[in-house]
Amino acid sequence: MSGLFLPEDDAVTPALRGFARAHAGLVELSEDPAFLRARDRDPRRAVGLVSGGGSGHEPLHAGFLGRGMLDAVAPGQVFASPHNRQVLYASRAAAGPGGVLHIVKNYTGDRINFGIAAERLRLEGIEVRRVLVDDDLATDSAQTATGRRGTGATVVVEKLLGAAADEGRGLEELAGLGAAVAAASRSLAVASRAQTSPHTAAPAFELGTGELEYGVGIHGERAARTIERPPLPRLLARMLDELLAGLPAGSDDLLVLVNGLGATTQLELYGIFEHVAEDLGGRGLGVAESLVGTFVPALDMAGFSITLTRLDEGWRRWWRAPVSTPAFPVQEA
Amino acid sequence: MSGLFLPEDDAVTPALRGFARAHAGLVELSEDPAFLRARDRDPRRAVGLVSGGGSGHEPLHAGFLGRGMLDAVAPGQVFASPHNRQVLYASRAAAGPGGVLHIVKNYTGDRINFGIAAERLRLEGIEVRRVLVDDDLATDSAQTATGRRGTGATVVVEKLLGAAADEGRGLEELAGLGAAVAAASRSLAVASRAQTSPHTAAPAFELGTGELEYGVGIHGERAARTIERPPLPRLLARMLDELLAGLPAGSDDLLVLVNGLGATTQLELYGIFEHVAEDLGGRGLGVAESLVGTFVPALDMAGFSITLTRLDEGWRRWWRAPVSTPAFPVQEA
Repeated sequence: MSGLFLPEDDAVTPALRGFARAHAGLVELSEDPAFLRARDRDPRRAVGLVSGGGSGHEPLHAGFLGRGMLDAVAPGQVFASPHNRQVLYASRAAAGPGGVLHIVKNYTGDRINFGIAAERLRLEGIEVRRVLVDDDLATDSAQTATGRRGTGATVVVEKLLGAAADEGRGLEELAGLGAAVAAASRSLAVASRAQTSPHTAAPAFELGTGELEYGVGIHGERAARTIERPPLPRLLARMLDELLAGLPAGSDDLLVLVNGLGATTQLELYGIFEHVAEDLGGRGLGVAESLVGTFVPALDMAGFSITLTRLDEGWRRWWRAPVSTPAFPVQEA
Repeated sequence: MSGLFLPEDDAVTPALRGFARAHAGLVELSEDPAFLRARDRDPRRAVGLVSGGGSGHEPLHAGFLGRGMLDAVAPGQVFASPHNRQVLYASRAAAGPGGVLHIVKNYTGDRINFGIAAERLRLEGIEVRRVLVDDDLATDSAQTATGRRGTGATVVVEKLLGAAADEGRGLEELAGLGAAVAAASRSLAVASRAQTSPHTAAPAFELGTGELEYGVGIHGERAARTIERPPLPRLLARMLDELLAGLPAGSDDLLVLVNGLGATTQLELYGIFEHVAEDLGGRGLGVAESLVGTFVPALDMAGFSITLTRLDEGWRRWWRAPVSTPAFPVQEA
């Protein structure tokens, strides 16, 4: 039996049912194949926004279904890509007159399954484009053919695209915007304890006291480096040094996402955010927009990620556009 | 150094500053003494709602500041009551023409410090009443003079009182309503891993694999019983048996809160909620309203609590009244 409170046979189906039950005013579950869709969308929206991926990262993606964000999502098993049939059915349900845009985190399985679904949709006469989110600086290496992983920036992409889609923008424009947001974003994650393995009830990897996995992935992919843990301000300064060096040039209006990886408390995350804001201030950089909380976890990993996005002209308005979803916070005036 | 990502000297001040920075549109921080207040309130509200308590339970209480819920909160150090000066200043800032209502979880330190503040407020001519939240069934024993602890039901009390206060109701009526909501609520919590001690970096208590602390408190207070872990449906059936037996008679419209204790994922919490709803259905009971997520954690404890509230006439409308706070979810149509 796992240390997690998950049923032994099927961890995902009861959770999807419970999610749809708890948010019956906002979302609807179809079970075979499994996908969730939003009940409501802005009448101006011409392009359906579809995302998905392995489970264990909630509230991503289903928590962002609803007015102002996503139209449908395809949830896989824990840390496993959804089947292409799930993506196909989700996309059919979400497609608007302008087609459907897939928001895909850069993992091989997701790329393949969203790709097969896209081919099938095109055969049915539905236009499809893809936004690939690849923000994880820890996998930014010329040595890997797969490229950077997709992590925290997915939330930023989904929020900005949702607001832009609500203005009636077309598929090409939204695909271009999504690519621009992903390109303007970099993330870096550290962990002090691995997530619990659903199979063994034990941590998925071992870290000694005082060690940090620096550059960990959201499925517990090990980092290139296990480091001795520095005091928090020094750790954050190092992460910001690397993030700012890795970000392409652009606007100095930064969106800062401090994201918990599962077991990290709000007390920690808001303290981290405050240190990040002070550190950026010392570099002459301000925080234009922010989001602090557990939005893209890796099951119950103890750790956090920082995502920086350079906000281009007009993006702040989209960031602040109102939404009505299970998990995205109230947008403040 | 702790396993938590907290500064070594002061865990709370940076988090308060980060919280106020991230939610500057909704809340405002005063630092000496430390309290947070909402920037906005319904003009019909005559009575200020003030809560507070030890830190480490976020989003409780500060996440519920704002229109439709709380007016001010006094945050203590981790798991420690706020100083009475904090409560005093928070209450002065929040008091309306009809006075101020203190929402207090039943712990000795909180009772004492809110009590001293109330005396001082009365000397200043501000009317004060208190709602004591005491929902934890695990401490429902004739042997303890202190009575049941206050846990998850605090969120329910704060939400319902917020909506009722927005209708301009007076201090006596709100105090009576709060007492009725607390009396109609019972909670029970289980943990599979203790929270990390901020002092030792180790779990605050040890549990073997396959063991559960049954009836744990939100500060890691040990339960009367450490049990062998049953399969999830059997565990939930036992918890519901005891909760339903402990609830006073009343309405069959149940509000179900499935609350994570810190490290428990949404995948788990929504799965638990689904099992709870099915189990209640098998008893001929429905789920009238629900809330699923991490709202009253015990730092990074792995575990969850279930709160049941019997919803009296009119309470569902208050539960569904719109709010604008950092952490309470969108209310669905």
